[in-house]
Amino acid sequence: MTHNLENTLALSSRTPAVLNAFLRDLPDDWTLSNEGEKTWSPFDVVGHLIGGERTDWMARAKMILQHGESQSFAPFDRFGQERESRGKSLSQLLDEFARLRAENLAEVRGWRLTAEDLARRGRHPDLGVVTLSQLLSTWAAHDLTHLHQISRVMAHQYRDAVGPWSAYLGVLHCDGHGG
Amino acid sequence: MTHNLENTLALSSRTPAVLNAFLRDLPDDWTLSNEGEKTWSPFDVVGHLIGGERTDWMARAKMILQHGESQSFAPFDRFGQERESRGKSLSQLLDEFARLRAENLAEVRGWRLTAEDLARRGRHPDLGVVTLSQLLSTWAAHDLTHLHQISRVMAHQYRDAVGPWSAYLGVLHCDGHGG
Repeated sequence: MTHNLENTLALSSRTPAVLNAFLRDLPDDWTLSNEGEKTWSPFDVVGHLIGGERTDWMARAKMILQHGESQSFAPFDRFGQERESRGKSLSQLLDEFARLRAENLAEVRGWRLTAEDLARRGRHPDLGVVTLSQLLSTWAAHDLTHLHQISRVMAHQYRDAVGPWSAYLGVLHCDGHGG
Repeated sequence: MTHNLENTLALSSRTPAVLNAFLRDLPDDWTLSNEGEKTWSPFDVVGHLIGGERTDWMARAKMILQHGESQSFAPFDRFGQERESRGKSLSQLLDEFARLRAENLAEVRGWRLTAEDLARRGRHPDLGVVTLSQLLSTWAAHDLTHLHQISRVMAHQYRDAVGPWSAYLGVLHCDGHGG
């Protein structure tokens, strides 16, 4: 599938409801457990997604539209979730993510992006030249990376409980490959 | 985490709502696309989950409670989704999965399983002796394997669209490891 803005927005607009159905009021054993030292729990992942909404995706999209390739994006703050989630409950984080995502997507829709806009180029500090189309596709795929991660982190908690069935459950053989 | 029946039921009872938020009325480009020949689309996965509700999990649980190790389970029909989904829309499948899952979990709750019940043993045709506790844990973890798979299958559709960001998206580096 090539990038299709409506498909991207259809997917991105659902993520708050998916996380809500998956995580809200689920026992802490599921939502606060991680895969070991320096790994993330589902709670941490939601904080990370909030950080992206607040400081990364929109700032980068605006930089492409306003400055093109002349300025590099600020690096993505991959550990902003500690700041975002301190002292908050998972329910608060889910509400905050839903609000920010809805605001951001409304703003993107308001831009009425054309095919020409989507082809506009910006500069990633490590990856070099990227397009607005690639940025918006990545925003949606980044949600999928983290749904994939949450499923894996939660399955990890039952690694022993499933006994010999662990051999058959693909999610228990996922090495994390960075997310 | 050792197996905790309430945690298992809390997770298992949410899966229909998660799939609903994720997939219902999403464009077909997302829900009907797979990862290539002989792989499954999200639509196929929902059909597979229906097959499990209808013919596998409950039948196995009842066999453990009624016959213990004296009889082997019937093999899991991993391709029953073709039968389950023929001629149906994704919305119909989501409704059917939600109904079957709710009925099955109500029945399990009605059994008022004790710790002794959960330790009861059955016989898997390939894995040998397993317990009811392991079966119920696997039922929940099997949902997670397929949420993990759906996230991966959907991200695959944007493999080209994300451009150079593919290097950073862990889900695009997942080899499927059997599900």
